[in-house]
Amino acid sequence: MRILAKDLKNAAEKGEKDIELSGWVHRIREMGALSFIVLRDRSGLVQLVLDKKYEALTLESVITARGDAALNEKAPGGAELRVSAIECISRAAADLPFQVNADATRTGIEAILDQRALSLRNPAIRAIFKVQATIIEAFSDYLRKQDFTEIKTSKIVGGGTEGGTNLFEVEYFDRKVYLAQSPQCYKQMLVASGLERVFEVAPAYRAEKHDTPRHLNEYVSLDLEMGFIESEKTLIELEKGILAHIFEEVARKNSAELELWAKTGASVPAPDAVFTAPVISYEEALKIANKESEQKKGARIFDINPDAERYVCEWALRESGIDLVFVNEFPRRHRPFYTYPLDAVRTMSFDALFRGIEITSGGRRQHNYEAQLEALPRFGIKAEGMEDYLSIFKYGCPPHGGFAIGLERLTAKILGLANVKEASLFPRDRRRVTP
Amino acid sequence: MRILAKDLKNAAEKGEKDIELSGWVHRIREMGALSFIVLRDRSGLVQLVLDKKYEALTLESVITARGDAALNEKAPGGAELRVSAIECISRAAADLPFQVNADATRTGIEAILDQRALSLRNPAIRAIFKVQATIIEAFSDYLRKQDFTEIKTSKIVGGGTEGGTNLFEVEYFDRKVYLAQSPQCYKQMLVASGLERVFEVAPAYRAEKHDTPRHLNEYVSLDLEMGFIESEKTLIELEKGILAHIFEEVARKNSAELELWAKTGASVPAPDAVFTAPVISYEEALKIANKESEQKKGARIFDINPDAERYVCEWALRESGIDLVFVNEFPRRHRPFYTYPLDAVRTMSFDALFRGIEITSGGRRQHNYEAQLEALPRFGIKAEGMEDYLSIFKYGCPPHGGFAIGLERLTAKILGLANVKEASLFPRDRRRVTP
Repeated sequence: MRILAKDLKNAAEKGEKDIELSGWVHRIREMGALSFIVLRDRSGLVQLVLDKKYEALTLESVITARGDAALNEKAPGGAELRVSAIECISRAAADLPFQVNADATRTGIEAILDQRALSLRNPAIRAIFKVQATIIEAFSDYLRKQDFTEIKTSKIVGGGTEGGTNLFEVEYFDRKVYLAQSPQCYKQMLVASGLERVFEVAPAYRAEKHDTPRHLNEYVSLDLEMGFIESEKTLIELEKGILAHIFEEVARKNSAELELWAKTGASVPAPDAVFTAPVISYEEALKIANKESEQKKGARIFDINPDAERYVCEWALRESGIDLVFVNEFPRRHRPFYTYPLDAVRTMSFDALFRGIEITSGGRRQHNYEAQLEALPRFGIKAEGMEDYLSIFKYGCPPHGGFAIGLERLTAKILGLANVKEASLFPRDRRRVTP
Repeated sequence: MRILAKDLKNAAEKGEKDIELSGWVHRIREMGALSFIVLRDRSGLVQLVLDKKYEALTLESVITARGDAALNEKAPGGAELRVSAIECISRAAADLPFQVNADATRTGIEAILDQRALSLRNPAIRAIFKVQATIIEAFSDYLRKQDFTEIKTSKIVGGGTEGGTNLFEVEYFDRKVYLAQSPQCYKQMLVASGLERVFEVAPAYRAEKHDTPRHLNEYVSLDLEMGFIESEKTLIELEKGILAHIFEEVARKNSAELELWAKTGASVPAPDAVFTAPVISYEEALKIANKESEQKKGARIFDINPDAERYVCEWALRESGIDLVFVNEFPRRHRPFYTYPLDAVRTMSFDALFRGIEITSGGRRQHNYEAQLEALPRFGIKAEGMEDYLSIFKYGCPPHGGFAIGLERLTAKILGLANVKEASLFPRDRRRVTP
């Protein structure tokens, strides 16, 4: 009966004999008559000791080894398997195009992404997606406990909710449709359906020609929307609760994964600290960013651009001990047409900035039919073709709002990854559509 | 402070005064000087009693009502609110194009889908998606407890895994790519990465020109893949465990939702019964189907077609008391190129049939590089362009397999819905891409 690498020490302590381990050959080292094999399985790494050289073995081959468990302080995990028999289940070709057992923090991103099938075998690289799975689970669980319903909406849409630019076109039988930029319209429809509180974890698409360490053309959006709120402040409090829960769960479940990225500063903020994160207005944020920018670059900043995001996070870390900050009251001209106004200039909207980057955008939405109709032309949008969307508000809709967290950005910032593409299993950018 | 409809009885029992309820006006009835309003919120329906006519009120308007809670056996939920003040938060236009409070089982599917923003307000229609959310949660939780890792793979791919037909084409900057038919290649890559056990809940696309009550062009696939299995039998046992858990959770959380579809026979099998579901070979299934078919139609059946699926389920219900059956050992010609052979003719594959329809297809996969290379031309597939996929097996891959459950089909069959489109929030078919 197979046991996992993580359970070998326990087996050794009990003096168990005739243990079976299965996994990938991560490393081979020969010392005189002995061979030491590091075996990798889904739970981690473990050392096998053989009293002879096993000729056929190549790195990355899948094997099953049988033997007795023994304690060994010097072995990873504190135990090793003294092998009596080994079976090669799947022999790896010797021309490995990627060094799986290398230091991931020293491997270039192009090699990592070009050789995805192999780079994902690297324990540190694989760890990124263990953390990501925890984030998805914690996000979903937290919201379910707050009475949110999980939804799955179509990613094939007739048009864009953000004004129709930056859409990928799909040949849909005899017509053109688009890949959804966000589930915005659907989330609002479902709040108004009486579900009131909904969330979705799903891909979102932006046909932007950028190629930066911040952007993906396909990303996973952690989306939510809720009814009966008065302002974006309710949403900010909700996001604090979500992030605190995510950080708590990552700390609890993924300490080994964080350890693998210690070099890049992988860590999660203390959950309690999240609630002390400052909430400042767009105007205040601009002032803070400009103060920093003038000192550092002697240049004025006119918008919350990537530099400003970094400066404001640095300020938050100094002021509140956490590099998380919520910026609200964005000017109307910077937000989509459906944003609820605070006054003639400002809106009930917010961004969350974490470790120097925007991870969330959200706000209260316009729920008044007449006000929405009136606002459309000011954003250059025609009411024709928007009937389905407008009918949400025409037939009774509560005040509501929502936001989305970018899964890859949050993952990258927790682990200290320099490029958001590293936090996508199969990232899509302008040049990359495989594997 | 707002309370929910479901908590009113409890408030009434405690004699609570000055309660606040918010929601949608579901029904209005006037009797002499009194008005009875049925209010709908995310938790259900509740009755408001007003001692005068409230002129401005229209169906579907969103209101907040204040008053005292009182027990009333005749009211839905056993309590009512004696209203002292009412506020209209969002007045619905009077020209409702869909009767929200009608009997959903008697409303045509075209009206339901054309008026999706309003039809989703119908309690029974909304209930479909409460059940669906439970299915997703139960599927995910069960697998997490079995050490599976949730993954999110790209839906934009360079080619098809099922041979390249029936793909939707996407204009991706200056090239053509496709919407993924399934995460097959990625699931296998991630098993081989050492994650060993992975699952994904995500959209899948089939550009098939059919328009049947069984098909969607975009559906939600509950996918999984696992390493170190010997045959499809391990997968069948896993699926039994998953389905039993889903049925248990739906029974526990969604009794009210099942009740709303009692007319169409909504129910879940007893979880224990799932483990008694028969496992029969393709040949046996054909024999059973032919016996039924000859009696009923006098016609021979040459494949497990929709008629055969129905007959085999009817047989399983008679034989084992559950209309769930697993059919394995499909002939090679009926399965994709990556299916693992049992012998020259048969494969280690299976379908799960539930209440007359296939809800799952899966099996063990070919993990041997040379065998896979050899098999490709027999399926008319060239190895060129498959390098990423083939590298999974070239560099060490354990025996593995997996399957996918169609979320909408399972939801429809639990609730007794005649058309799978009813179980998709925003179904896509050849003609429908909005809302």
